[in-house]
This record gives sequence, structure tokens and C-alpha cells, in this order.
Amino acid sequence: MLAEIITIGDELLIGQVVDTNSAWMGQQLALNGIRLNRKVAVSDNANAIREALSDSGKRAQVVLITGGLGPTKDDITKKTMADYFGMKLRMDADVLSDVEALFKRFNREMTPTNRLQAEVPEGCTVLRNKNGTAPGMWFEKDGVIYVSMPGVPYEMKAMFSDDVIPRLREKFSLPAIYHRTVMTQGIGESWLSDTLEEWEASLQSENIGLAYLPAPGIVRLRLTAYGNKQQELREKINRKIEELPALIGKYIFATDDIPLHEVVGNTLLSLGKTLVTAESCTGGFLAHQITSVAGSSQWFLGSTVTYANETKTGLLDIPQEIIVKNGAVSEEVALRMAENVRKKLNADFAISTTGIAGPSGGTAEKPVGTVWIAVATKDSVKAKLFQFGDNRERNIVRSAQAGMMMLLKTIKGEF
Amino acid sequence: MLAEIITIGDELLIGQVVDTNSAWMGQQLALNGIRLNRKVAVSDNANAIREALSDSGKRAQVVLITGGLGPTKDDITKKTMADYFGMKLRMDADVLSDVEALFKRFNREMTPTNRLQAEVPEGCTVLRNKNGTAPGMWFEKDGVIYVSMPGVPYEMKAMFSDDVIPRLREKFSLPAIYHRTVMTQGIGESWLSDTLEEWEASLQSENIGLAYLPAPGIVRLRLTAYGNKQQELREKINRKIEELPALIGKYIFATDDIPLHEVVGNTLLSLGKTLVTAESCTGGFLAHQITSVAGSSQWFLGSTVTYANETKTGLLDIPQEIIVKNGAVSEEVALRMAENVRKKLNADFAISTTGIAGPSGGTAEKPVGTVWIAVATKDSVKAKLFQFGDNRERNIVRSAQAGMMMLLKTIKGEF
Repeated sequence: MLAEIITIGDELLIGQVVDTNSAWMGQQLALNGIRLNRKVAVSDNANAIREALSDSGKRAQVVLITGGLGPTKDDITKKTMADYFGMKLRMDADVLSDVEALFKRFNREMTPTNRLQAEVPEGCTVLRNKNGTAPGMWFEKDGVIYVSMPGVPYEMKAMFSDDVIPRLREKFSLPAIYHRTVMTQGIGESWLSDTLEEWEASLQSENIGLAYLPAPGIVRLRLTAYGNKQQELREKINRKIEELPALIGKYIFATDDIPLHEVVGNTLLSLGKTLVTAESCTGGFLAHQITSVAGSSQWFLGSTVTYANETKTGLLDIPQEIIVKNGAVSEEVALRMAENVRKKLNADFAISTTGIAGPSGGTAEKPVGTVWIAVATKDSVKAKLFQFGDNRERNIVRSAQAGMMMLLKTIKGEF
Repeated sequence: MLAEIITIGDELLIGQVVDTNSAWMGQQLALNGIRLNRKVAVSDNANAIREALSDSGKRAQVVLITGGLGPTKDDITKKTMADYFGMKLRMDADVLSDVEALFKRFNREMTPTNRLQAEVPEGCTVLRNKNGTAPGMWFEKDGVIYVSMPGVPYEMKAMFSDDVIPRLREKFSLPAIYHRTVMTQGIGESWLSDTLEEWEASLQSENIGLAYLPAPGIVRLRLTAYGNKQQELREKINRKIEELPALIGKYIFATDDIPLHEVVGNTLLSLGKTLVTAESCTGGFLAHQITSVAGSSQWFLGSTVTYANETKTGLLDIPQEIIVKNGAVSEEVALRMAENVRKKLNADFAISTTGIAGPSGGTAEKPVGTVWIAVATKDSVKAKLFQFGDNRERNIVRSAQAGMMMLLKTIKGEF
């Protein structure tokens, strides 16, 4: 079964908003065996919306629409859809009571604009919005289903998971599909591809698709198979994944699509151990990634972000003369940062980062991208030098990843 | 002039990669007076790519294509494009030498797959890639320009800015367009819309478009005008923006599209003052946002992330009895965090955050979303209580924003 996504909003075309909705919906569709054929973004313009509805309706059995349903006057989606399906707008009492309840809950006054959100095309099935004021709308026309959802991500996600997917599952009998993703860190796409050449050829003979999905410092290998029986597809793919550790084992940190910081969290949680960090070049990003996981307070105690040299002394008791002698970006300082923060906060493990994220601050001896990372345990502290590139954002991300990978290797006794 | 964007890659449809390229390209096109009409994502499939090229070529004068050019074998874009334009592939000596130089620079061995990246369709104009191995390709067919670029964001961005935009400017005579964005924090979209009703009506009579662009805690108001003379459009929009402070002044933090953390950085830099932060519920996100700005080391000294109660004592000398008596999420603790970190690190200003980000940890008295934020100066320290929602990620973002907004107001003497 084919689906298409239409996202609506001038803000998407003018680039003031990055569309994360359609990526999330694509994941959910794939997990449910629905193939996303195409996605298109159009402006808040009745003709463009009508044309997109018509084009997608010709190719797909399900057309998912997000955006263009906000309370403000630049939104014309609802009216255009009502016209397209030949319906009039009516006030929906249930939706109105949802909107009223939401305003009551947040103790805010309701405006006339908010009331209008409770209007819906008369022939559609209304999907109630538990998290916002714009209802979803489900239409059927010439055997094609069209579902309009709000553009606010958490409103759309709840509606899609709780309401849209169950209705689609009920409506269609879906083909089997199986995906699995292997996560690698610290190895480039081309090098991986050449290392895996033979293995990749063996996938083709088993009719398994492979995609390399690179992100800074990370390459994900996604295996996909379509067929009749989910169980067979699963076994076929899992057999191939079991061959990978012998080929690229030291780069693999997960055999499912899990971010590195979640792997770190799961590992520490299962061991009952605690972590602290001492960050210079990562500037809080490492702590932020770790604490983005709910429940991280069970194993993460805290971090020091010591951007200025004086702060390295003030928070971590690293003598100025050590910093002056070795430089802030040095093995000695990285080791002391990790060791001192671990002791000071009484944790089992510590990761430290000190480097030159760029774009300025580099020298001939220590160019931009030079990063020292250390990991301390109760028994040892070790540091490693990395040479990343010249992009600040990527250097920050890669430093955080390299630190977490070093921690995992230290725990496994491989570093 | 109309442009369309085609992004290519199964990973976009299956949702394993969020497309940030097209948003960025949309911004650049708008800044250059080129209107993005539509963007579409298709799979790594020759038919889908051909259909998208043909559809976009009928509607637009410029078709921009990204993705599908990596070194691995799932990439078929180059071959499909060569076929579509009736060209054969040839080895390009300049591109080959670029690829070789890149591998030399990073001290890595070149693979046979990498060599193939230097093949290009024989009739296209080659756009050299300064940051990666896949070259860009510029085609012209029936008066329409097609430009294929790599999908890796920093490779695409450099090529687009340095090569594609100058070539498009040379080729077309572009219409005048002017955008300006006003940034607000701490006020919802509906409330803004109702407050600005009269002002908004006055925009319509001057033929100025208005869009409300909400993000967690932030609403951007984007004004747009098209016409003949850039200078007239600019003056017309700026006159309307000057009316806003009287209506919603206390929510405005910028009258250009600048993130809050950059406004904070610019303000501190111009005053020659320094900032530190003490974070609990924001978990390093505040420091990360601040240090994502290059040069932030000039005014940001560091942060403590004190997730565990013991860490609040260990790093910030807050007595356990104070924490036990008031709770970690309390005015008293927020005040001491800000005051102590400022003194300890000898900074001019400090922001502290302590709250319950969720999803767990809430109580009847202090539900999820309860956040105390304090700002300390050399003369004063003040705290404010916020009640955000029940989404962890949003609560972290909104807490960081509220803290930065409080700092700006403190500096202006408004808090």
C-alpha cells in the first residue's frame, strides 16, 4: 500500500521551519508496513493545496496532510479541503468542548479565533486533538483516504499514533516488511562500504536492501526486506546482522536504531553505575544529550562546563600552571578534568572533553578540530587525541560521540 | 521566478533522516528573491526521480536536486540524470584531483568506489565540491535549469552559496522581495493574533503578508512584501514594525530573525560583561545553546549542571539542609544556585534553572513543568516561578529561553 504526505505552510518553503513531522510519520508508516511513496511541501495557497491533493490522490491510497490548521488567519487549509470534498463547515460541539477544556486547564482566556477552530467540514470524520485546539479530519473520496492533521509536532504525533494508525490498520490488510538498523561510530561511509563489499553482495542474493545513512561521526546501516511473512523476514535479516561483528565489530555500538547516548544510559542503568562529565569544547552538549533521556537522573549526576581557563581552576581545581604549561587543549588537562570531576562528584565514571571546536582558536601545532578526550574510572584514567574537521557544530557533536564511545569501550575493557 | 526542490533518498521517506537541506535552501532562495513553489522528496528509484524531474520542469524555471550522490551503491541519481538528459558518463580529471586531494588531506586511503565519484555526465557543467567527494552538476534543458548537489548538508551549503546562487543571479533578472521577522518569547500564537488584530488589518491594506511561526516558547512574526523596488518594500515593512513595541513590546527580543541565545551573546559582548549558568532541569542545554555561537568564549565562562542533589552541594556549596527543607525545585535553591555560581566563577551575571522537566518526578504541589529560574547580578538576585507543560523536551527548551529572556530584562532594568 502506498501513502503520500503533503505538508502545508509558507514557513516550510521559505525555510523558517524545518519539517520534522514528515520524517517521523515516514518512520511510523514503515513500522506499520505502509510504504511512503513521496512527500511534498506546498504553500498556504488554495490552488497549490488542491493540486497536491489531486496529484497524490492519483498515486496513493492514503494521503496524509499536516499543517495549515493553526488559529491564525494565514491558515486556509480547512476551507480549501471542505471545498475540495464538496462540504460545508459546521460547528462541532465535541471539538468546541475540547478547546474550551484546554483553555480552562491552562487558565487562559479563549478568543473568538479559538472558537473557529471547532468548525469542521460537515461530511468528514473528526479526529479529536488531545493536545491542542485544531481537530484532525478524515475524508474518503474515490477509494482514497485523506487525513488532515495539525502541524504542531506533539499534537500531530499523538493523533497519528492513537487514532490514524489504528484506523488505517483496520481499513487495509498490510504487507509484511522488516527493517533493522546497525549503528556504527568512528568509521566513514566509503571505508565501511569497501570493507563490507562481499557481505553486501550476499545481501543482494537474499533480496535484502541495504542503505548507508551517514550523520556526523555516525553511519547507520539499514537492512530492509519485504515479503509475505514477517517472521521469515526478521530471521533472514537477523542472520546477516550476526555476521557483522566479525567484520566491523569495534565500530558497532548498537544493532537497533538507538542513539549513542541512550546506549550509554542503558548500559549504566543495567550496571547500577553513575556518570559525570567535564566539558570544555562540547560546551554542555554532552550533558544535554545525556539528560535528554527521561530518567537520566538515575545514573547521571552532573557536569561542569569549563569554558574559561579560570573556570577549570575554580570548578575542577586544575592549577593554572598546569594549564599554562601544557595548554588547555592537552592530554594532561583532559586527564585531570576527568579525574577531578569524578572524584569531586563521587561518580563511577567521568568523561572529559577539551579541544578547539573552531572556527577560530587553531594554531599550526593544534589546528581547529584537535580534541583531547579522557575517561576516568575508579581505577584508571586514559586520554585519546582526535583530529576532527573544521566545522564547529560537527566538532562538538563528534567530540561528544567519541567520548561516549570511549566510555562504552572502557566499560567493556576494550580501551 | 519559481524554483522547486527535489530531495532524493529512501532514508528521507522512511524517516531515518530529517531533511534540513531544503529548509536552508528555501531561506537562501527567499533572500535572493527566488520563490520556492514546492518541494518534493522521492525514493532512490529511477522512475520516481524521472517523474519528479519532469513534473518540476513543467512548473519551475529552476529545479534544485539534493541527495543520492554518496559513494555507496544505493545511489543511482547520477546515472538516472545522465539518462534523462541523454548524456553518457565521463571521468572528470579536475574532480578526480579534488577527490584525491581530499583523501590526502585526511590521510586516508582512496577506494575504487571513491574514484567513481569523479564520473560526470558529459554535457553538464561540473560544480566542484570543496568539502567532499561528490561533484555538483548543472544542466539546462528546454529553458529550465537543473542543479544536482550532494546531500551532505555542509557540502551542499558551500556549493549552493559559492557557486549555484551566483550563477542563478547572473542568469536571471530577479524581482524585488523583502522579508523581516520579529521575534517574541513568552506569548502564545492566539493571544498575539488577537492583540494584533487591528495592526494586522492595516498590513492587508498595504499589501504586506503576515505569518505567525510558532516554536516552543517562541512565536516569530514574519512580514513579507513583493514588488518592484526593494527600498520601498523595506521602508513599508520597517514602518509597520516600528508600531509593534507599543503593542507587544515586553515579549519582543529581536526585530530580525536571530535566535535568543545570539541576542544574549551580542548584548553581553557589547557590554563587555560575562555570564555563567547553573543548570538543573535544563541539563546543559542552556550552556550548549550559548556555546553553539562561535566566539562565545569571550563572554561565557562556564556552567555547572547539577542534576543530583549532592552535586548541588559538591559544586555550588548549597547545604543539604536547605535542599531538604525547601526541595530542590524551590525559589531558595534557584536563588542560591545563581548567586553561588556567579560568585564562584567571578562573572557579571548568572542564570540558574531548577524544575521538573518530566515525564516523571511531579507531585500535586509541584507538577511536571514547575520551574524556578533565577538571575543574579553583582547587586541583586531574583527568581521567578514558571508553569510549563508536560513535555520534557519542550520544558527544557522553554526553561532555557525563559532564563535568557529574564537575563535580557534584568540588563534592561525591566525585571
